[in-house]
Amino acid sequence: MATTRVEKDSMGSIEVPADHYWGAQTQRSIQNFPIGVARFKWQAPIIEALGILKKSAAQANAELGELPQNIADLIVRAADEVIRGERNEEFPLVVFQTGSGTQSNMNANEVIANRAIELAGGVMGSKAPVHPNDHVNRGQSSNDTFPTAMHIAVGRELQRHLFPAVELLRDTLAAKSEQYKDVVKTGRTHLQDATPITLGQEIGGWVAQLEFGLEALRAALPGIYDLAIGGTAVGTGLNAHPRFGDTAAAHIAEITGLPFRSARNKFFALSAHDALVNLSGALRTLAGALMKIANDVRWLASGPRCGIGELHIPDNEPGSSIMPGKVNPTQCEAMTMVCVQVYGNDAATAFAGSQGNFQLNVYKPVMVHNVLESIQLLGDSCRAFNDHCAVGIEPNLDRIAANLEKNLMLVTALNRHIGYDKAAAIAKKAQHEQTTLRSAALALGYVTAEQYDEWIVPMDMTHS
Amino acid sequence: MATTRVEKDSMGSIEVPADHYWGAQTQRSIQNFPIGVARFKWQAPIIEALGILKKSAAQANAELGELPQNIADLIVRAADEVIRGERNEEFPLVVFQTGSGTQSNMNANEVIANRAIELAGGVMGSKAPVHPNDHVNRGQSSNDTFPTAMHIAVGRELQRHLFPAVELLRDTLAAKSEQYKDVVKTGRTHLQDATPITLGQEIGGWVAQLEFGLEALRAALPGIYDLAIGGTAVGTGLNAHPRFGDTAAAHIAEITGLPFRSARNKFFALSAHDALVNLSGALRTLAGALMKIANDVRWLASGPRCGIGELHIPDNEPGSSIMPGKVNPTQCEAMTMVCVQVYGNDAATAFAGSQGNFQLNVYKPVMVHNVLESIQLLGDSCRAFNDHCAVGIEPNLDRIAANLEKNLMLVTALNRHIGYDKAAAIAKKAQHEQTTLRSAALALGYVTAEQYDEWIVPMDMTHS
Amino acid sequence: MATTRVEKDSMGSIEVPADHYWGAQTQRSIQNFPIGVARFKWQAPIIEALGILKKSAAQANAELGELPQNIADLIVRAADEVIRGERNEEFPLVVFQTGSGTQSNMNANEVIANRAIELAGGVMGSKAPVHPNDHVNRGQSSNDTFPTAMHIAVGRELQRHLFPAVELLRDTLAAKSEQYKDVVKTGRTHLQDATPITLGQEIGGWVAQLEFGLEALRAALPGIYDLAIGGTAVGTGLNAHPRFGDTAAAHIAEITGLPFRSARNKFFALSAHDALVNLSGALRTLAGALMKIANDVRWLASGPRCGIGELHIPDNEPGSSIMPGKVNPTQCEAMTMVCVQVYGNDAATAFAGSQGNFQLNVYKPVMVHNVLESIQLLGDSCRAFNDHCAVGIEPNLDRIAANLEKNLMLVTALNRHIGYDKAAAIAKKAQHEQTTLRSAALALGYVTAEQYDEWIVPMDMTHS
Amino acid sequence: MATTRVEKDSMGSIEVPADHYWGAQTQRSIQNFPIGVARFKWQAPIIEALGILKKSAAQANAELGELPQNIADLIVRAADEVIRGERNEEFPLVVFQTGSGTQSNMNANEVIANRAIELAGGVMGSKAPVHPNDHVNRGQSSNDTFPTAMHIAVGRELQRHLFPAVELLRDTLAAKSEQYKDVVKTGRTHLQDATPITLGQEIGGWVAQLEFGLEALRAALPGIYDLAIGGTAVGTGLNAHPRFGDTAAAHIAEITGLPFRSARNKFFALSAHDALVNLSGALRTLAGALMKIANDVRWLASGPRCGIGELHIPDNEPGSSIMPGKVNPTQCEAMTMVCVQVYGNDAATAFAGSQGNFQLNVYKPVMVHNVLESIQLLGDSCRAFNDHCAVGIEPNLDRIAANLEKNLMLVTALNRHIGYDKAAAIAKKAQHEQTTLRSAALALGYVTAEQYDEWIVPMDMTHS
Repeated sequence: MATTRVEKDSMGSIEVPADHYWGAQTQRSIQNFPIGVARFKWQAPIIEALGILKKSAAQANAELGELPQNIADLIVRAADEVIRGERNEEFPLVVFQTGSGTQSNMNANEVIANRAIELAGGVMGSKAPVHPNDHVNRGQSSNDTFPTAMHIAVGRELQRHLFPAVELLRDTLAAKSEQYKDVVKTGRTHLQDATPITLGQEIGGWVAQLEFGLEALRAALPGIYDLAIGGTAVGTGLNAHPRFGDTAAAHIAEITGLPFRSARNKFFALSAHDALVNLSGALRTLAGALMKIANDVRWLASGPRCGIGELHIPDNEPGSSIMPGKVNPTQCEAMTMVCVQVYGNDAATAFAGSQGNFQLNVYKPVMVHNVLESIQLLGDSCRAFNDHCAVGIEPNLDRIAANLEKNLMLVTALNRHIGYDKAAAIAKKAQHEQTTLRSAALALGYVTAEQYDEWIVPMDMTHS
Repeated sequence: MATTRVEKDSMGSIEVPADHYWGAQTQRSIQNFPIGVARFKWQAPIIEALGILKKSAAQANAELGELPQNIADLIVRAADEVIRGERNEEFPLVVFQTGSGTQSNMNANEVIANRAIELAGGVMGSKAPVHPNDHVNRGQSSNDTFPTAMHIAVGRELQRHLFPAVELLRDTLAAKSEQYKDVVKTGRTHLQDATPITLGQEIGGWVAQLEFGLEALRAALPGIYDLAIGGTAVGTGLNAHPRFGDTAAAHIAEITGLPFRSARNKFFALSAHDALVNLSGALRTLAGALMKIANDVRWLASGPRCGIGELHIPDNEPGSSIMPGKVNPTQCEAMTMVCVQVYGNDAATAFAGSQGNFQLNVYKPVMVHNVLESIQLLGDSCRAFNDHCAVGIEPNLDRIAANLEKNLMLVTALNRHIGYDKAAAIAKKAQHEQTTLRSAALALGYVTAEQYDEWIVPMDMTHS
Repeated sequence: MATTRVEKDSMGSIEVPADHYWGAQTQRSIQNFPIGVARFKWQAPIIEALGILKKSAAQANAELGELPQNIADLIVRAADEVIRGERNEEFPLVVFQTGSGTQSNMNANEVIANRAIELAGGVMGSKAPVHPNDHVNRGQSSNDTFPTAMHIAVGRELQRHLFPAVELLRDTLAAKSEQYKDVVKTGRTHLQDATPITLGQEIGGWVAQLEFGLEALRAALPGIYDLAIGGTAVGTGLNAHPRFGDTAAAHIAEITGLPFRSARNKFFALSAHDALVNLSGALRTLAGALMKIANDVRWLASGPRCGIGELHIPDNEPGSSIMPGKVNPTQCEAMTMVCVQVYGNDAATAFAGSQGNFQLNVYKPVMVHNVLESIQLLGDSCRAFNDHCAVGIEPNLDRIAANLEKNLMLVTALNRHIGYDKAAAIAKKAQHEQTTLRSAALALGYVTAEQYDEWIVPMDMTHS
Repeated sequence: MATTRVEKDSMGSIEVPADHYWGAQTQRSIQNFPIGVARFKWQAPIIEALGILKKSAAQANAELGELPQNIADLIVRAADEVIRGERNEEFPLVVFQTGSGTQSNMNANEVIANRAIELAGGVMGSKAPVHPNDHVNRGQSSNDTFPTAMHIAVGRELQRHLFPAVELLRDTLAAKSEQYKDVVKTGRTHLQDATPITLGQEIGGWVAQLEFGLEALRAALPGIYDLAIGGTAVGTGLNAHPRFGDTAAAHIAEITGLPFRSARNKFFALSAHDALVNLSGALRTLAGALMKIANDVRWLASGPRCGIGELHIPDNEPGSSIMPGKVNPTQCEAMTMVCVQVYGNDAATAFAGSQGNFQLNVYKPVMVHNVLESIQLLGDSCRAFNDHCAVGIEPNLDRIAANLEKNLMLVTALNRHIGYDKAAAIAKKAQHEQTTLRSAALALGYVTAEQYDEWIVPMDMTHS
């Protein structure tokens, strides 16, 4: 019993597994690119995006008279299966293939064509009644379809995976900021004790960072919504109907609910992926913010006894295989590891983005891979950090009060009354003699006890 | 004869050069940070920005009743000298100092105070009638002033140095794109011959990259226009008048003609410089675009005889100390070296941006240094590349025609008529037998001579 | 029927799947770190290394009288199953967990303990007769075991995966270099025609790069062979037998056949992974070399007609979904994409490496993940590039000869006879008038025909 | 009165300042590359290295009969002035020029030729009796001389600037490690209290990092000692005497006292700078180590009252322009800023290193610039950090003792006696009830008072 069938392409015949829909070019790629096979097969977002693209292209071609309606209908049915994730096992190719993504574009063409042929009762591999190039790829080139799929996948994952997760965390922290707006505590600059702030203000700084990160991402979205579709091989649109790009993009927008559109300059859209590089920069901005937040949380929760210890965070698991009772800020650690990964992914993306030549940048797969990985990891870790850490952040009020009490930088409130130089003398005396600020101030005679108590009011120092 | 005078700060007395305005803290920094002294003293943009800031602060404090008008006027006069670049030699400090920029803020305070004292006929170092902390630094901390100066400098340099240079190059290329819109040539994808485009289209792709780069930078500007001023030590605004931030920012906006404003969240503005990181990402996007453009230019001009040779670029200098008559694409080389430098600067900036703790990020100097260096280099090199290369780009029409003539990918135009598989057979036959496409097509009998000549029209293939 | 059982740790009870060996802490990690689950579970090299480590530790503890022999034997039997890859499905945790790798260390402890209990006829989860902490983890902490496993995995993958692949490619190219030592061709500098070289010399430069990359990696190996084992929680070796580190390392060396040893300074071995950072730098050096080689190959093979076209490379698959007959340098593209990925992985690794605090660097998992990924990808792509591209590289002798013939830089050979300035005049005249160098030389009268033919001998110009 | 003179090169005549020695090609470069002029002129190390190279080349050529002795002598005299730094103002060119460094090589040729002409009583610009190309550049090309100068400069700066500074800091820390070997303190992992270590051990971990960094750099030196000299234009050595490379390298080794040698494969030496990339990676390894050390120092010194506060570091300057009496860890801040700069420089270097084509990498200037900047900054900051911080590090014994006393992780010593689970219960009880470990242990009845006092001895826990 045959376990393979023969498929053909312009290089000749090749055997493919009989129980799979893919064709000759997919099979050649499997054999030629055994690189990172265990971890680098395309994930669902790219497969789904290819399905959306092929469906939209078929619809557009039918509307423009470039494909018979029945052929288009068959393609749409097969593509819908791809979109629904029912054909993921038909996409065996990895990131490290041809730099245009041609083989994955052909993978989609072959799978959809063969499945459409099957739906039509035809013989797989016969390319009739549905041809992978002449029908499924009608009016398209890998050079415009693959970057189109890249943008679809990235846009969707941002919207449905990353933004909700970041917003969830932001909202949790915003609520904490409001909740603790009256907890006055020691501020810290240069890791050194500084003038007081409220815990609400401190957390509010984190919220502002997340807001900024979201804004930076949103500012990078327009470039992502520009699609290469319609440019075909080199940007000129050769072999595509003049309205194909706009029409297909409209279908993509309708399917996804996102404002995708045909890019104004297709030469740019094929030869450079500056929009992805720029988005990657915005993802890195967000990662930098999350790193600062996670670091602040774990330092403020450091201890429990020999650190700063001003925050409690949830105890989620035993912290040590040797030190009994140890609890570690593991969500912060996972988050900061994700952040350095995002930095690395961004470096790869930006490097790749600079390496286009003439009408094509042939680092497409590695670029979208890194961007999607960063989106995935940031979304996952924001959610985990939120659920297993942020929601449980609570102040250690005793420690906060004790630290504030002994903070020498409260002296700053005296600047306006006695000048910087005398205030400095008080602080230095207190530190040198290990006394309180108040006793040093009185001993130097620069203020009276009444003045000290009136002027040094930590809560008053937290707003101007 | 005394060549030094004694200045004091809260740590005691120290001798400073008698012929300089700076005071004790500047002198301590000179002595404590002998790091990269030959190349890392602050350049004019930061000094100027500190002058603008100190002037604006004095004006705001006077308006708000926080400083006597006569003191403010003295400060403004001294600060104007700083702004005009007349006191650059009074700023001897380097980038690698305290991470808050405190010493450079104090440098500005000391110089302005001593110069104001001099203007008032007082004794330098006496701190009367103008005190560097109590008056010049009134309502301020290094923690809000230095990042304010950072944003002022970056905003101004973008506007007056980088944007005009990029726009100049874009306009030059846009004119070339229009000029050569009818020059049909070989397209290239994967470095391999592809379907035709016009030279105008090819150059138009570069123009679109520059447009995108400019847009990305402009999208990053709002964060730069947000100023930390008013936050003082930790973001709470302690010791500043409640309206000081807004008022000072309004003066800064007026002096610079740019929409600077007081940041909404000062805790964010001190503890994180995500806006700079994000801008740095946009600078990198531009650098990536320039790298692609410069690479395309030099590859298209490669040869003169054994390369692609489709473009002429100006011969600016002898190319080799050993190969007589050699001319090299040196402007492309300088540009791409600038691009890798910008990538490196960006990596440093983004790393630093992730490293804030609590109420302060103490990598301020190195961040603004790298961003300003990238702005400087990109602006300079865009202008040099424009003047010494782009304006002189001309097509080598003979080579372009010869290459187009033999390009096998013209066969793509047959897809719509005879299908992909037969078209592929023609191309393979022509390549294998080293004949023309036309003779291979006719030999295979897939088209008639009339059909071939009607269907294969390169210019028609450059638009859909 | 029960599908779960109850496992306990110091935080209490938790249900785990009945058909798996892992225990409470593994289960908690599954639930707390749903981050990148589809792609970031530990791969075989780390699981195997944990098995080797646990086996070696049990053997060492038995020898040193720290474990009863029968307990050690049970652990060894279970660990051998892990080493043989038979328990990979028992390791469900991902990279983004606690930064010490504690949970994966406990995963190994739990799986081995429960399997050992099963082998002994005990009740899984009972921790008797084999306790995951007291026995399997005897004399160990995650803080020393996980970095030990990191080094084992990296050392082994370098030796068995990367080095053979790079050496294979080097040998292929070295043979090509020898084969084509007499093919004289145009040299190119600045992308411009330069003095001649042989194809053997050109390829020999690539061989030298690979040799250098291998040397750089080997120079980084000693740091990898230093193992943290014996340091336990903070580097002091608390709770371990004084000779445990050396003894366990000796077993590891024996099992792996590699010169692993106990690190001299355990505080360094836990708190910093500079050896991994340094190795990552060497991987990047190799990647940079491969990028240059792959770029040279695809540029030399560019065309087929409108590029340089001096090399033929194998046609492995159809190059375009729209351009019939197009063949692309896809192996070069996959390779260069791997190279940018390695650069990105290296950036993540180096960033992480700088972020240790006090006695621990808590970026261990992300560091080893990136290093292993780079090793995997470089090894895979060197092999694919060798098999599907390098072995098939052949010169296009006609093109090479034609290019050499018209190369103006042959004039350089005249420098020694007529001086640089006259030689330059000849080259400029020839280029300006589009004539041959010979006719320009004769026309200027600087050389006779006999002199020209004697002095301008390309092959003679390829060696001094 | 003439302030300019006319100089000529193969492109024609150009006016140069009469009071400078440089010639036509230097002048063209000044005019064509106005990029970063204020900060990017070559520093002394490169100028000196060019002088060493030109002197050695002249000596070698004379010995090999390629230059008359009197011409060589003139060149040597002029080159000696360059080496001694007396002609630095004659080197006006910047980093961002042609990517081969041709213009700086010609700058050296022109200055030395004109100065030699002057010494011989000739007319500057006459190229007689000493010609910049035919004599000073004899047997050389920019393509081999500039990378040779790069390696000379890097090798020397490592040896005389960086290594002594790192060793100084290492020695200071090693002495501190010895001095404080009996100070037992709280260890910290995950920022959380862990089992005890001595301060000597903690500092010893830093010493080990510096040792490793030095070793990594030394392991990268052999590649730096390989010189391109002798390869001339493309690596073939055309126009150089067959023994020129070896002979010139021997002179360079003699002048510098370093084991420079002629590289075995000149094609590699011109077309790739993998040795510099690899060295840059080692510099980054060192920077990562310094970042960890500086971070540890400032965190351990954090406070003075609300942080960890276990170390005192010197008070070098007032820390705040607003907070009187504040002292900040400014040397740590300068150091960590240098480290991120080195990371950025390394990213630029490695990117550039991957971008060679064919027989030349045309990113030479930007590569050596970044490597030299990193060497300079690391050397400077190690020395400043040593002198102004490390030498003054002292333990705060009271705080150390108080922290150790309350550290719950002392419980780990009980593992071996009562097992991990009971030990964990004790720690949890103490933390939950905010009691001492001892009272919790006794209350649970797991140990007697005598046992507790015998088993829990912090100093005993610091070694196995």
